[in-house]
Amino acid sequence: MELLKQKIREQGVVLSAQVLKVDAFLNHQVDPVLMQQVGVEFARRFAGQGIDKVLTIEASGIAPALMTALALGVPMLFARKQQSLTLGGELLTARVYSFTKQVESTIAVAASHLAAGERVLIVDDFLAHGQAARGLATIVEQAGARVAGIGIVIEKSFQPGRGELARLGYRVESLARIASLDGGAVRFLD
Amino acid sequence: MELLKQKIREQGVVLSAQVLKVDAFLNHQVDPVLMQQVGVEFARRFAGQGIDKVLTIEASGIAPALMTALALGVPMLFARKQQSLTLGGELLTARVYSFTKQVESTIAVAASHLAAGERVLIVDDFLAHGQAARGLATIVEQAGARVAGIGIVIEKSFQPGRGELARLGYRVESLARIASLDGGAVRFLD
Repeated sequence: MELLKQKIREQGVVLSAQVLKVDAFLNHQVDPVLMQQVGVEFARRFAGQGIDKVLTIEASGIAPALMTALALGVPMLFARKQQSLTLGGELLTARVYSFTKQVESTIAVAASHLAAGERVLIVDDFLAHGQAARGLATIVEQAGARVAGIGIVIEKSFQPGRGELARLGYRVESLARIASLDGGAVRFLD
Repeated sequence: MELLKQKIREQGVVLSAQVLKVDAFLNHQVDPVLMQQVGVEFARRFAGQGIDKVLTIEASGIAPALMTALALGVPMLFARKQQSLTLGGELLTARVYSFTKQVESTIAVAASHLAAGERVLIVDDFLAHGQAARGLATIVEQAGARVAGIGIVIEKSFQPGRGELARLGYRVESLARIASLDGGAVRFLD
Protein backbone atom coordinates (compact mmCIF):
# COMPACT_ATOMS: atom_id res chain seq x y z
CA MET A 1 0.00 0.00 0.00
CA GLU A 2 1.91 2.97 -1.36
CA LEU A 3 0.48 5.75 0.84
CA LEU A 4 1.37 3.74 3.95
CA LYS A 5 4.93 3.11 2.77
CA GLN A 6 5.30 6.79 2.01
CA LYS A 7 4.14 7.69 5.55
CA ILE A 8 6.62 5.19 7.01
CA ARG A 9 9.45 6.65 4.93
CA GLU A 10 8.56 10.23 5.83
CA GLN A 11 7.43 9.97 9.47
CA GLY A 12 8.69 6.63 10.77
CA VAL A 13 11.70 6.71 13.09
CA VAL A 14 14.06 3.73 13.24
CA LEU A 15 15.02 3.38 16.90
CA SER A 16 17.06 0.19 16.47
CA ALA A 17 17.41 -2.73 14.08
CA GLN A 18 14.23 -4.15 15.69
CA VAL A 19 12.13 -1.08 16.53
CA LEU A 20 10.30 1.27 14.17
CA LYS A 21 8.48 4.15 15.85
CA VAL A 22 5.35 5.22 14.01
CA ASP A 23 3.71 7.24 16.75
CA ALA A 24 3.20 10.19 14.39
CA PHE A 25 0.45 8.46 12.38
CA LEU A 26 -0.41 5.00 13.70
CA ASN A 27 -0.13 4.25 17.40
CA HIS A 28 -0.19 7.51 19.34
CA GLN A 29 -1.11 10.28 16.96
CA VAL A 30 -3.31 8.69 14.30
CA ASP A 31 -3.96 9.83 10.73
CA PRO A 32 -7.69 9.18 10.18
CA VAL A 33 -7.53 9.45 6.38
CA LEU A 34 -4.74 6.88 6.25
CA MET A 35 -6.74 4.62 8.61
CA GLN A 36 -9.76 4.95 6.32
CA GLN A 37 -7.66 3.85 3.36
CA VAL A 38 -6.21 0.99 5.41
CA GLY A 39 -9.76 -0.13 6.19
CA VAL A 40 -10.84 0.03 2.56
CA GLU A 41 -7.76 -1.95 1.51
CA PHE A 42 -8.37 -4.73 4.07
CA ALA A 43 -12.03 -4.86 2.99
CA ARG A 44 -10.88 -5.25 -0.63
CA ARG A 45 -8.39 -8.00 0.20
CA PHE A 46 -10.89 -9.98 2.28
CA ALA A 47 -13.94 -9.30 0.07
CA GLY A 48 -16.08 -12.35 -0.53
CA GLN A 49 -14.86 -14.09 2.65
CA GLY A 50 -18.18 -13.57 4.42
CA ILE A 51 -16.60 -11.70 7.33
CA ASP A 52 -19.04 -11.30 10.27
CA LYS A 53 -16.83 -9.35 12.66
CA VAL A 54 -13.45 -7.63 12.95
CA LEU A 55 -11.46 -8.44 16.10
CA THR A 56 -8.45 -6.54 17.44
CA ILE A 57 -6.75 -5.72 20.73
CA GLU A 58 -6.60 -2.42 22.57
CA ALA A 59 -5.26 0.14 22.05
CA SER A 60 -3.34 0.60 18.78
CA GLY A 61 -5.37 -1.96 16.85
CA ILE A 62 -8.63 -0.08 17.37
CA ALA A 63 -8.20 2.60 14.69
CA PRO A 64 -7.39 0.30 11.73
CA ALA A 65 -9.90 -2.33 12.93
CA LEU A 66 -12.71 0.23 13.23
CA MET A 67 -12.15 1.51 9.70
CA THR A 68 -11.97 -2.05 8.36
CA ALA A 69 -15.25 -2.91 10.07
CA LEU A 70 -16.84 0.24 8.64
CA ALA A 71 -15.70 -0.69 5.12
CA LEU A 72 -16.97 -4.27 5.54
CA GLY A 73 -20.26 -3.22 7.17
CA VAL A 74 -19.75 -5.39 10.27
CA PRO A 75 -19.14 -4.74 14.01
CA MET A 76 -15.67 -4.35 15.50
CA LEU A 77 -14.68 -5.99 18.77
CA PHE A 78 -11.54 -5.20 20.75
CA ALA A 79 -10.00 -7.54 23.29
CA ARG A 80 -9.16 -6.02 26.65
CA LYS A 81 -5.82 -6.37 28.35
CA GLN A 82 -5.80 -7.61 31.91
CA GLN A 83 -5.25 -4.25 33.58
CA SER A 84 -8.27 -2.64 31.95
CA LEU A 85 -10.66 -5.53 32.54
CA THR A 86 -14.01 -4.21 33.69
CA LEU A 87 -15.91 -6.84 31.75
CA GLY A 88 -18.50 -8.86 33.56
CA GLY A 89 -19.99 -12.19 32.56
CA GLU A 90 -18.28 -15.13 30.90
CA LEU A 91 -14.90 -14.36 29.33
CA LEU A 92 -12.80 -15.94 26.63
CA THR A 93 -9.14 -15.41 27.47
CA ALA A 94 -5.65 -16.03 26.15
CA ARG A 95 -2.16 -15.52 27.51
CA VAL A 96 0.04 -13.27 25.38
CA TYR A 97 3.76 -12.72 25.80
CA SER A 98 5.11 -9.28 24.94
CA PHE A 99 8.71 -9.38 23.70
CA THR A 100 8.85 -5.56 23.92
CA LYS A 101 7.88 -5.44 27.59
CA GLN A 102 9.04 -8.97 28.47
CA VAL A 103 5.88 -9.78 30.39
CA GLU A 104 3.07 -12.25 29.83
CA SER A 105 -0.44 -10.88 30.17
CA THR A 106 -4.02 -12.00 29.77
CA ILE A 107 -6.30 -10.68 27.05
CA ALA A 108 -10.06 -11.18 27.19
CA VAL A 109 -13.27 -10.87 25.21
CA ALA A 110 -16.82 -11.21 26.55
CA ALA A 111 -18.11 -14.58 25.33
CA SER A 112 -21.44 -12.95 24.49
CA HIS A 113 -19.83 -11.03 21.60
CA LEU A 114 -18.42 -13.98 19.65
CA ALA A 115 -20.77 -16.65 18.34
CA ALA A 116 -20.02 -20.15 17.07
CA GLY A 117 -19.80 -20.25 13.31
CA GLU A 118 -18.93 -16.58 12.85
CA ARG A 119 -16.15 -15.68 10.44
CA VAL A 120 -13.76 -13.30 12.14
CA LEU A 121 -11.11 -11.07 10.58
CA ILE A 122 -8.28 -10.25 13.00
CA VAL A 123 -6.67 -6.82 12.47
CA ASP A 124 -3.65 -5.38 14.25
CA ASP A 125 -1.23 -2.50 13.80
CA PHE A 126 2.02 -4.51 13.97
CA LEU A 127 3.17 -8.06 13.40
CA ALA A 128 6.50 -9.02 14.95
CA HIS A 129 6.52 -12.30 16.88
CA GLY A 130 2.82 -12.90 16.25
CA GLN A 131 1.88 -13.32 19.90
CA ALA A 132 -1.09 -10.93 19.90
CA ALA A 133 -2.55 -12.36 16.68
CA ARG A 134 -2.13 -15.92 18.01
CA GLY A 135 -3.86 -14.96 21.26
CA LEU A 136 -6.75 -13.42 19.37
CA ALA A 137 -7.01 -16.50 17.11
CA THR A 138 -7.14 -18.71 20.22
CA ILE A 139 -10.05 -16.65 21.54
CA VAL A 140 -11.92 -16.89 18.21
CA GLU A 141 -11.50 -20.66 18.20
CA GLN A 142 -12.61 -21.00 21.84
CA ALA A 143 -15.89 -19.42 20.74
CA GLY A 144 -16.31 -22.01 17.99
CA ALA A 145 -15.89 -19.19 15.47
CA ARG A 146 -13.41 -19.21 12.60
CA VAL A 147 -10.44 -17.01 11.74
CA ALA A 148 -11.13 -15.81 8.21
CA GLY A 149 -7.79 -14.07 7.99
CA ILE A 150 -5.33 -11.74 9.67
CA GLY A 151 -4.83 -8.16 8.45
CA ILE A 152 -1.66 -6.38 9.58
CA VAL A 153 -0.81 -2.74 8.95
CA ILE A 154 2.99 -3.07 9.36
CA GLU A 155 4.75 -6.43 9.27
CA LYS A 156 8.33 -6.75 10.45
CA SER A 157 9.11 -9.53 8.03
CA PHE A 158 12.53 -10.15 9.59
CA GLN A 159 10.82 -11.39 12.76
CA PRO A 160 9.10 -14.79 13.02
CA GLY A 161 5.42 -13.76 13.35
CA ARG A 162 4.29 -14.25 9.76
CA GLY A 163 5.99 -17.62 9.49
CA GLU A 164 4.35 -18.81 12.72
CA LEU A 165 0.88 -17.68 11.61
CA ALA A 166 1.30 -19.21 8.15
CA ARG A 167 2.45 -22.49 9.73
CA LEU A 168 -0.78 -22.51 11.75
CA GLY A 169 -2.75 -22.17 8.50
CA TYR A 170 -3.85 -18.53 8.75
CA ARG A 171 -3.97 -16.24 5.74
CA VAL A 172 -1.98 -13.09 6.57
CA GLU A 173 -2.31 -9.86 4.57
CA SER A 174 0.13 -7.11 5.51
CA LEU A 175 -0.08 -3.64 3.99
CA ALA A 176 3.61 -2.83 4.48
CA ARG A 177 6.27 -5.52 4.83
CA ILE A 178 9.59 -4.44 6.24
CA ALA A 179 12.58 -6.54 5.25
CA SER A 180 15.07 -4.76 7.48
CA LEU A 181 15.69 -1.75 9.70
CA ASP A 182 19.50 -2.18 9.59
CA GLY A 183 21.63 0.93 9.55
CA GLY A 184 18.71 3.14 10.57
CA ALA A 185 16.98 2.73 7.21
CA VAL A 186 13.63 1.13 6.39
CA ARG A 187 13.90 -1.42 3.58
CA PHE A 188 10.60 -2.84 2.32
CA LEU A 189 10.22 -6.43 1.18
CA ASP A 190 8.40 -5.66 -2.07
CA MET B 1 -28.63 12.31 19.01
CA GLU B 2 -31.57 10.03 18.39
CA LEU B 3 -29.77 6.99 16.93
CA LEU B 4 -27.48 6.90 19.97
CA LYS B 5 -30.39 7.10 22.42
CA GLN B 6 -32.13 4.31 20.53
CA LYS B 7 -29.00 2.12 20.81
CA ILE B 8 -28.76 2.86 24.54
CA ARG B 9 -32.43 1.95 25.01
CA GLU B 10 -32.13 -1.26 22.97
CA GLN B 11 -28.67 -2.54 23.86
CA GLY B 12 -27.63 -0.74 27.04
CA VAL B 13 -27.73 -2.72 30.28
CA VAL B 14 -28.32 -0.91 33.58
CA LEU B 15 -26.07 -2.67 36.10
CA SER B 16 -26.84 -0.34 39.00
CA ALA B 17 -28.10 3.19 39.65
CA GLN B 18 -24.57 4.38 38.68
CA VAL B 19 -23.46 1.96 35.99
CA LEU B 20 -24.68 1.64 32.41
CA LYS B 21 -23.06 -1.12 30.38
CA VAL B 22 -22.77 -0.31 26.68
CA ASP B 23 -20.25 -2.92 25.67
CA ALA B 24 -22.47 -4.07 22.79
CA PHE B 25 -21.82 -0.95 20.69
CA LEU B 26 -19.41 1.49 22.34
CA ASN B 27 -16.63 0.25 24.58
CA HIS B 28 -15.96 -3.41 23.78
CA GLN B 29 -17.90 -4.32 20.67
CA VAL B 30 -18.13 -1.13 18.61
CA ASP B 31 -20.70 -0.15 15.97
CA PRO B 32 -18.66 1.61 13.27
CA VAL B 33 -21.67 3.20 11.56
CA LEU B 34 -22.83 4.70 14.87
CA MET B 35 -19.27 5.92 15.53
CA GLN B 36 -19.19 7.54 12.09
CA GLN B 37 -22.41 9.39 12.89
CA VAL B 38 -21.05 10.40 16.29
CA GLY B 39 -17.99 11.84 14.53
CA VAL B 40 -20.10 13.76 12.03
CA GLU B 41 -22.25 15.15 14.85
CA PHE B 42 -19.25 16.36 16.91
CA ALA B 43 -17.79 17.93 13.75
CA ARG B 44 -21.09 19.74 13.19
CA ARG B 45 -21.30 20.98 16.78
CA PHE B 46 -17.70 22.25 16.81
CA ALA B 47 -17.66 23.55 13.22
CA GLY B 48 -16.02 26.95 12.86
CA GLN B 49 -13.96 26.50 16.04
CA GLY B 50 -10.73 26.05 14.09
CA ILE B 51 -9.99 22.65 15.64
CA ASP B 52 -6.42 21.50 14.91
CA LYS B 53 -6.47 18.12 16.68
CA VAL B 54 -8.76 15.68 18.48
CA LEU B 55 -7.41 14.31 21.78
CA THR B 56 -8.75 11.29 23.66
CA ILE B 57 -7.54 8.57 26.02
CA GLU B 58 -7.10 4.89 25.32
CA ALA B 59 -8.98 2.64 24.81
CA SER B 60 -12.72 3.39 24.58
CA GLY B 61 -12.25 6.99 23.46
CA ILE B 62 -10.34 6.01 20.33
CA ALA B 63 -13.29 4.99 18.13
CA PRO B 64 -15.42 8.15 18.56
CA ALA B 65 -12.31 10.39 18.51
CA LEU B 66 -11.01 8.83 15.28
CA MET B 67 -14.33 9.36 13.51
CA THR B 68 -14.53 12.95 14.79
CA ALA B 69 -11.02 13.64 13.52
CA LEU B 70 -11.93 12.14 10.15
CA ALA B 71 -15.02 14.34 9.90
CA LEU B 72 -13.01 17.44 10.90
CA GLY B 73 -10.05 16.60 8.65
CA VAL B 74 -7.48 16.76 11.48
CA PRO B 75 -5.23 14.22 13.28
CA MET B 76 -6.34 12.29 16.35
CA LEU B 77 -4.07 11.78 19.34
CA PHE B 78 -4.72 9.35 22.18
CA ALA B 79 -3.17 9.64 25.62
CA ARG B 80 -1.56 6.50 27.00
CA LYS B 81 -2.23 5.11 30.41
CA GLN B 82 0.73 4.39 32.63
CA GLN B 83 0.77 0.65 32.13
CA SER B 84 0.99 0.87 28.36
CA LEU B 85 3.62 3.58 28.23
CA THR B 86 6.22 2.75 25.61
CA LEU B 87 6.62 6.36 24.61
CA GLY B 88 10.06 7.82 24.50
CA GLY B 89 11.08 11.47 24.58
CA GLU B 90 9.54 14.31 26.56
CA LEU B 91 6.10 13.59 27.99
CA LEU B 92 3.20 15.71 29.14
CA THR B 93 1.44 13.90 31.99
CA ALA B 94 -1.52 14.17 34.33
CA ARG B 95 -2.78 12.17 37.30
CA VAL B 96 -6.29 10.79 36.87
CA TYR B 97 -8.38 9.18 39.57
CA SER B 98 -10.73 6.39 38.49
CA PHE B 99 -13.83 6.17 40.67
CA THR B 100 -14.73 2.85 39.01
CA LYS B 101 -11.41 1.19 39.84
CA GLN B 102 -10.58 3.42 42.85
CA VAL B 103 -7.01 3.95 41.73
CA GLU B 104 -5.08 6.98 40.60
CA SER B 105 -3.01 6.59 37.46
CA THR B 106 -0.85 8.63 35.14
CA ILE B 107 -1.83 9.46 31.59
CA ALA B 108 0.71 10.75 29.09
CA VAL B 109 1.12 12.29 25.67
CA ALA B 110 4.39 12.83 23.77
CA ALA B 111 5.14 16.55 23.94
CA SER B 112 6.12 16.46 20.27
CA HIS B 113 2.49 15.88 19.24
CA LEU B 114 0.91 18.94 20.88
CA ALA B 115 2.07 22.41 19.86
CA ALA B 116 1.55 25.75 21.57
CA GLY B 117 -1.37 27.64 20.11
CA GLU B 118 -3.18 24.56 18.77
CA ARG B 119 -6.93 24.33 19.32
CA VAL B 120 -7.72 20.88 20.68
CA LEU B 121 -11.08 19.12 20.88
CA ILE B 122 -11.21 16.53 23.67
CA VAL B 123 -13.47 13.53 22.94
CA ASP B 124 -14.37 10.67 25.29
CA ASP B 125 -16.93 7.89 25.48
CA PHE B 126 -18.29 8.65 28.97
CA LEU B 127 -18.50 11.60 31.33
CA ALA B 128 -19.15 10.78 34.99
CA HIS B 129 -16.85 12.56 37.47
CA GLY B 130 -14.92 14.30 34.70
CA GLN B 131 -11.51 13.09 35.85
CA ALA B 132 -10.30 11.86 32.45
CA ALA B 133 -11.44 15.01 30.64
CA ARG B 134 -9.80 17.22 33.27
CA GLY B 135 -6.55 15.25 32.97
CA LEU B 136 -6.59 15.65 29.20
CA ALA B 137 -7.32 19.39 29.52
CA THR B 138 -4.35 19.73 31.89
CA ILE B 139 -2.12 18.10 29.29
CA VAL B 140 -3.39 20.42 26.53
CA GLU B 141 -2.67 23.46 28.70
CA GLN B 142 0.81 22.22 29.66
CA ALA B 143 1.58 22.29 25.93
CA GLY B 144 0.43 25.89 25.67
CA ALA B 145 -2.42 24.67 23.48
CA ARG B 146 -6.07 25.50 24.07
CA VAL B 147 -9.10 23.31 24.82
CA ALA B 148 -11.64 24.26 22.14
CA GLY B 149 -14.30 22.05 23.69
CA ILE B 150 -15.13 18.64 25.12
CA GLY B 151 -17.27 16.15 23.20
CA ILE B 152 -18.82 13.31 25.19
CA VAL B 153 -20.73 10.38 23.75
CA ILE B 154 -22.69 9.49 26.93
CA GLU B 155 -22.98 11.87 29.87
CA LYS B 156 -24.21 10.65 33.24
CA SER B 157 -25.79 13.96 34.11
CA PHE B 158 -26.55 12.84 37.68
CA GLN B 159 -22.81 12.72 38.41
CA PRO B 160 -20.71 15.87 38.91
CA GLY B 161 -18.47 15.78 35.79
CA ARG B 162 -20.32 18.25 33.61
CA GLY B 163 -20.71 20.75 36.44
CA GLU B 164 -16.98 20.57 37.21
CA LEU B 165 -15.97 21.05 33.58
CA ALA B 166 -18.43 23.92 33.10
CA ARG B 167 -17.11 25.57 36.28
CA LEU B 168 -13.61 25.43 34.77
CA GLY B 169 -14.95 27.23 31.69
CA TYR B 170 -14.99 24.40 29.19
CA ARG B 171 -17.76 23.98 26.62
CA VAL B 172 -19.16 20.45 26.92
CA GLU B 173 -21.27 18.84 24.19
CA SER B 174 -22.78 15.45 25.09
CA LEU B 175 -24.67 13.38 22.54
CA ALA B 176 -26.78 11.52 25.12
CA ARG B 177 -27.45 12.94 28.59
CA ILE B 178 -28.70 10.49 31.17
CA ALA B 179 -30.76 11.95 34.00
CA SER B 180 -31.08 8.73 35.96
CA LEU B 181 -30.56 4.97 35.94
CA ASP B 182 -32.86 4.43 38.94
CA GLY B 183 -35.00 1.31 38.97
CA GLY B 184 -33.02 -0.29 36.17
CA ALA B 185 -34.35 2.14 33.57
CA VAL B 186 -32.51 4.74 31.49
CA ARG B 187 -34.12 8.17 31.68
CA PHE B 188 -32.69 10.84 29.37
CA LEU B 189 -32.38 14.49 30.35
CA ASP B 190 -33.88 15.91 27.16
